[in-house]
This record gives sequence, C-alpha cells and structure tokens, in this order.
Amino acid sequence: MLDQPQSNIEKVLSHLAENEGAALERLFSFLRIPSISTVSDYAGDCQKAAEWLAAQFEGLGFSASVRQTPGRPILIAHSDEAGPDAPHILYYGHYDVQPADPEELWTSPAFEPVLIDGPAGKRIVARGAADDKGQVMIWVEAFRSWRAVHGKLPVRVTVLVEGEEETGSPSLKPFLQAHADELKADVAVISDGNMWDIASPSITTRLRGTVYTQIKLRTANCDLHSGLFGGVARNALNALTQLLGGLHDEQGRVQIPGFYDDVPELPEALARQWDALAFDEAALLKSFGLATPAGETDRPALQRLWSRPTADIHGIWGGYTGEGRKTVIPAEAHAKISFRVVPGQDPQRVAQCFRRFLDDRRPPDAEITLDVLGAEPGIEIPADTRWMRAVRRALGDEYGKPAILGGCGGALPMVGALKSILGVDALLFSFGLDDDQVHSPNEKFELRCYRQGARAHARLLAELGRAT
Amino acid sequence: MLDQPQSNIEKVLSHLAENEGAALERLFSFLRIPSISTVSDYAGDCQKAAEWLAAQFEGLGFSASVRQTPGRPILIAHSDEAGPDAPHILYYGHYDVQPADPEELWTSPAFEPVLIDGPAGKRIVARGAADDKGQVMIWVEAFRSWRAVHGKLPVRVTVLVEGEEETGSPSLKPFLQAHADELKADVAVISDGNMWDIASPSITTRLRGTVYTQIKLRTANCDLHSGLFGGVARNALNALTQLLGGLHDEQGRVQIPGFYDDVPELPEALARQWDALAFDEAALLKSFGLATPAGETDRPALQRLWSRPTADIHGIWGGYTGEGRKTVIPAEAHAKISFRVVPGQDPQRVAQCFRRFLDDRRPPDAEITLDVLGAEPGIEIPADTRWMRAVRRALGDEYGKPAILGGCGGALPMVGALKSILGVDALLFSFGLDDDQVHSPNEKFELRCYRQGARAHARLLAELGRAT
Repeated sequence: MLDQPQSNIEKVLSHLAENEGAALERLFSFLRIPSISTVSDYAGDCQKAAEWLAAQFEGLGFSASVRQTPGRPILIAHSDEAGPDAPHILYYGHYDVQPADPEELWTSPAFEPVLIDGPAGKRIVARGAADDKGQVMIWVEAFRSWRAVHGKLPVRVTVLVEGEEETGSPSLKPFLQAHADELKADVAVISDGNMWDIASPSITTRLRGTVYTQIKLRTANCDLHSGLFGGVARNALNALTQLLGGLHDEQGRVQIPGFYDDVPELPEALARQWDALAFDEAALLKSFGLATPAGETDRPALQRLWSRPTADIHGIWGGYTGEGRKTVIPAEAHAKISFRVVPGQDPQRVAQCFRRFLDDRRPPDAEITLDVLGAEPGIEIPADTRWMRAVRRALGDEYGKPAILGGCGGALPMVGALKSILGVDALLFSFGLDDDQVHSPNEKFELRCYRQGARAHARLLAELGRAT
Repeated sequence: MLDQPQSNIEKVLSHLAENEGAALERLFSFLRIPSISTVSDYAGDCQKAAEWLAAQFEGLGFSASVRQTPGRPILIAHSDEAGPDAPHILYYGHYDVQPADPEELWTSPAFEPVLIDGPAGKRIVARGAADDKGQVMIWVEAFRSWRAVHGKLPVRVTVLVEGEEETGSPSLKPFLQAHADELKADVAVISDGNMWDIASPSITTRLRGTVYTQIKLRTANCDLHSGLFGGVARNALNALTQLLGGLHDEQGRVQIPGFYDDVPELPEALARQWDALAFDEAALLKSFGLATPAGETDRPALQRLWSRPTADIHGIWGGYTGEGRKTVIPAEAHAKISFRVVPGQDPQRVAQCFRRFLDDRRPPDAEITLDVLGAEPGIEIPADTRWMRAVRRALGDEYGKPAILGGCGGALPMVGALKSILGVDALLFSFGLDDDQVHSPNEKFELRCYRQGARAHARLLAELGRAT
C-alpha cells in the first residue's frame, strides 16, 4: 500500500474543497472581531478573539484554554488523540491585528470582510486577512478536514495563538518560560508572512540575529564655547562622526577587524538557487525612492539581505538640536548602532570586536561607554531534518515545484524564543504576498493563497504523520 | 611744554586716587541693583539701573536719556563740551548681569557688594563686579576725575550702555540701525572682558568670524526596517557620519578643499609675541578634564585659538533616540556645523567650499540640503591707527610694558555690529581676569584691576585728546 499517504491526503483535500464556503464563513466571523492589540480600547475584543478560537479548538477535539497575561490573553490548545508516540507539533499564530486607520482609505470597512475580484482571482479583504488570522485558519481548517476524513489527527498538536504580536510580544517570553514543559514539542510550525510569489512556495531557513549597541562618548567635563575654545578643546560629535564614519569602506564592507571572521560562505547550491530567483533589487529600491544598492558592492542582493552581516546606525544625538544657532562644543554624544549577524557569528564576539574597534580608533580624551542592549545570534534551520523534509515535500507536491530555501534579514522574536527557551526549531513557511498591504488599508489575502495554504497544511499533516 | 600731557594726566590720576572711596561707593550703589536681564521679574531693576546711569552722566555734564526697546532699555549719553573738532569716541558697556543662582554658593549675597581680602589684595565681590558694571564705572570715574581737574573732557563722547548683553543683545542691532547718525563716532572703546593677567595689559586686535550651517541629508522616502532591508537600503546616518567623519585629517586639518586658501600666516613679529606669552594650554585643557589639544597639531595653541579657522559640529540628530532598541534605517539625518573663519577668509566662499565638499563626497541616493544660517567675517582691528596707538601708549604707560596684541576666538556681536552698521572700529581692552567667575557664584573684580583700569582709561583720554 505504497500509495496510502497519497490517497489519505486526496480525501482530505477533497473535503477542504467541498467545505470551503463554510470555512470562509468561519474565517469571516474571526475577522469581524476587531482584536486590535495596540489600542487598549480593544482589549475586550482581544479576549473575545481568544475565546472564539478556544471554541474552534474545542470543536476539533482539543482541550483549549484562554490564559491571562499582563497584556492580552494567549490561547493554548492541546490534541493528544494521535497517541503518545506520535510526533508532537507546536503551531504558533497570533489573533491580534493592527489598527485600521486611516479608515477612510478602506474601500470596505476593515472589520467587515468581503470576497472581491482582483487580478489574481478572488481575494479576501479585511484587517487581519493575511496577518495573521487567515494564515491561522488555514491550518485550523486543515485539522478540521483531516479529522472529518480520518477521525483523528495524525500528530499530537499544541497550539499557541498570542494576542500581542503587533505590540512586540511582551508577554510571550515569560509565558514560554513559565510553561516550557507544557509547550515543549518536536518542532514548531509558523505561517505568518509571505511566500516568494503566488506560484512559488518558500521556506525560511535562515534568520539574521542582532547585536544592538549604544555608545556614549564623552570628552570635556562640560560643553564649551566653540569661539573661545574651538581649535583647542575636543568636540564629542567631531570624535563620534570620525569613529562611525569609518564603519564602512567604499565597497560597503564593515571595517571592524574580525567582523567577517566567522561568516560562512553560502553553500554553492543555495547561492545558485538564490541567483536563479532573479530578485529585482532595482524595483525594491525604486519603491523606496532609491537607485543604488547599499551594502557590500561585490555581493548579490539576496546575500546582502539574507546571509551577510551589516552595520546600521539607528540614531545619533548630541549637542544643540534646537532652532537656529548655538556655538557649542558638545562634551557628550550618543549613538545607537546595531549589527545584523548571521549563523556562524558569535554575537558576543561581534560586540567585543566593535568594542576593540572603538578602543583602537578612540580619539585622545574621548571616553567611550559601550552598552550592549541585546545580542541574539542568527538562526539557521537545518534543511535536511525529517521535519524540514516533510515541509519540502508538502509544498513541492502542492505547488509542483521545489520550495525556495530563503532567508529573512530580520529576527523573528518568536523563532528565537522557541529555540532558546523550548529548544525547538521552527518550520517557517507562509502564504502571504508582498502586496497584501498588511498594516495598511485594504489588507487582503488572495483566495488562491488561502486555498493552497490550507491544502499545503493538510499535506504537511500527512507528511508529519509519516515523517522520517 | 613737551611735558604738558604728562602733568595733565598726573593730576587726574591723583584725583582718582584721592576719590577712590567715593567712587567705590558709587560702584556699590550700581551693583546693588539686581539688573538681571535673563529673568523678566527683574525688568524693573534693569530700568532702575539705566536711570541710575543716566543720573551719573547728567552729573558729568552729559545729556543722557533712557531709550526704550522691545526688551531692556538702552542708556544713551552725549558730551560735546570738547567742541566740534575734537575726536568723537563711542563708549560701549552693559548694565545687565547674569542671575545669581545658585545663591547658596555665594559667600556673601550677590547684590550686597563687599570689599574683601584675596591673594592679590582687596577684591570687590558682587554679581556684575567685573561683568560689566565695574568695567563701565572705571571709565565713568576717569571722566569724572578728568573733568574735576580740567573742567571738561578732551574728546567728544557718546555713551551706549545696553541691558541685553547677557541675552544676546536682540535689540542692539535694530537700535544701531535706527540711530546710526546719532551714534556714529571716530572709534569705539569697549572694556568688557579679560586682560592677559593682572600685570599684563592686552588689546584684542583680531576676532574670528563664523559660518554657521545646517545640513539635512535624505536617503529613502521613508524609514525602513534594518532587518528586512539592511544591506540594501541606504542609511542616512551612515551617510552623514561618513561625510562629517571626513571633516578633519589626523593632523586636525580641515579637509575641505580651498578652506585654507585665504588664511594669512600670522606676521612674524606677532607670532613671536604670542609664543613669548608661554600660554599654558595644558592647564586650560586640564580645567576642562582634557589632556590632548584638538585642532591642527602643527600650530601653537594661541594660533589655533586666535588666528586659525576651525570646524565644529554643534549638533546631530536623526533616527531613533529614545530608550532601548529600535531597528530603523533612518531616511533623514540632520547636523549643525560651523566654521570659525579668520580675517582674510570670505565667509561666503567658505560656505561654497563646504557645499562643494558635501557634493563631491555625497553618497549615492543621498540628497543634501545645506542651509547657511549665518556668515560673518573675521575682524582685524589695525594696530597702527592713531586710536590704537593711543590705547597702546595708555596701557604701556600704566603697566610699564607693552600691551599684548591678542585675539579672540569668538565673535563679539557688538564689534561686528559697530563695524557693519556704523563703520566704526572698536578698541577692545579689558581689565577682568580669567578667575573672576563672571556668570558663576562669587564674581569678583580685583581692586588692583579696578584701579589700574580707571587710571588706564584716564590716560587714554589724554592720549585720545592729542592722538595723531
């Protein structure tokens, strides 16, 4: 019975298709709850969204509960019907959404979801359609159809849906720490972002980490008059710009000695896959009003975004910043600088290299305080685990071509927290598109993305159930 | 009768000595008026101080009047008794003072002047003792004694004593413009600062000017996320620090092409005089908590302060400057930068050179706006005019050694305004000392400085009366 998994899944996919109307009704009910987390007026709606989800999971045979936090509640649900030896999968999502304003720019009210025609077929328009309610419901409906066909899920499932993703997830880490035993699983599944394009599935296998620093540079014991003492007294802002102006050379390479020591070259095959994507950097830059790429001039764009470390100054302040003229020689200057680091780089070592760079170039009389506000490593999710192979098969079967193994330039705090607190890798694959306008008016989720997302999640259940 | 000027002045000096007690009583009455200009509560006291002065000048045969301005009043007084052919001298001073706080640090109340013993003999302790009431009263008492001995002043005198010097003299320029005909004179006399040391008179013959600029640097059309776009999108703060970090080389030389083109070398004799002063730069730096001179490493300190141009960054702002972390690629960055310019440099040309420097080094996609907030030339007061010769003789005779022809690193707005509006050069020589604590608690004026200041001003009257 070699074809059993195949026929197993065909019935589930049929069930999904036959019940899509009812499934969309459920999603629309979810979308009608204005569970905005950034505005406290909507705290009650957040509670309502969590309770709505709890009822969904109870209906799917899970034991579900809404857990209170100092902020918005977290929905936790467990399904153990696959038995103690089945793989245990943690599904993560968030029910909270961005505010709808400016509301007048919406073609239909943000919390009254509609299905309308678009260039790529039907689309669901509502706040949260893609980010992340629509992408939570694709796996919820995959669970539902699977159970309808097979009676029970093929894997043990724990679900965590939080309500503070749009506000930086302040309660999440403490919650994971407090409930680590309850939440531990073999692997996590997250769909909360974009695919490469509507026909090309992608899996995020590498995320850059961050070393975030803040500098205080002090020269004299007080601000001085630039007329009386200019040419004699050290200027903290002159000194700081001299230091930071030397961060890059003309080829965009970071000039901190040792910075690139542990940066691995991208495997040849992956580099070729990325090159083959023919990423249109010019178009991206143009959308920002830019024409010339920043960063290392000898690297292709996707490497600069996904697999190369960078240095960015986020803020500088010091001296007189009011209106008009003040001729002060500032005694103190401040800057925030962070480094995106890649898997292989030790964030602590990067911070040390930066400290040495500042020490070595320190102008006379400049006292430098370097605070490290955060140091998180880059994450690489191995592409050849049984779990990753399962996702690659599920996506490959659904889309008829291999999934792109891509990167993400930024850190996803949830992925880092899962890894550092629970020791769990995340399978990151999503179904949103770049033009979904998440966080903007007229957020949408293509029906094709919704449909193939649910199918892909159903296929993944089959693959996970037999994953080896 | 070759010795007549000499005997003329001896009697005046004797009169000053004999009447010093009464003169100090007058100064103390003036010091008791808390004519603080920076706090509006004291506006009435400013009016009182101006009126007190008006009475003094009326008593000396001047026609005096208190003129209202949008801020504090200006005292104007005229004495024409020397006749229409006598030289016409404009005396400038200010009756306003700094606030006394922190009052608890005063050893005696700020507005209750006392004469106490100090290391250099008696000293007058009160707010305004040196800055500038004491240094106004030295020439007032010189007038008084001269008239007591000779019946009338040897020169025509116009007096302008303002009440907004401590707040940047906002009403002064408009007043000079509106009353230019009334205030025009052959030369101006100002004592409102310091001498080299208690035994060494000095005349300020050069002041640096200022070219004050503000930069806006714009890259993308919006701030971007450094995780998602770091390595691709141009960072305005990276770009700005790169530009400004290149303002100086390691020898402290300004790197703007053309910047030094019109900077004259100091005349050999003056350079030697300055070198002979053996200025203790290390002590000055130490008082600021510094150890290593900034500026051009191949220039002596007094040249760096008085006769060399400089570049100082006064303020920078851009990006995220709040608490903690924000990983933004700022699209906009700002800075205030000024140049001290010396006589010979055209401020407009310096601004142009800076503009070209920014253009030439402009990173791709960086749009730079340069605003010139002010461009005032350096001023050199020729040392060989009849007026300057008169001052040099007066100071030389009083102190028994030649006056130092020094510089001032900063602009004195009054000097620039006199020159640009009235076309009048200023004779700048003062009797304060570096440790007088003007603007701080326990401001003092050494009695020796007061006494020799009054005598020097009396000698100057004699010299001006016969100046050739």
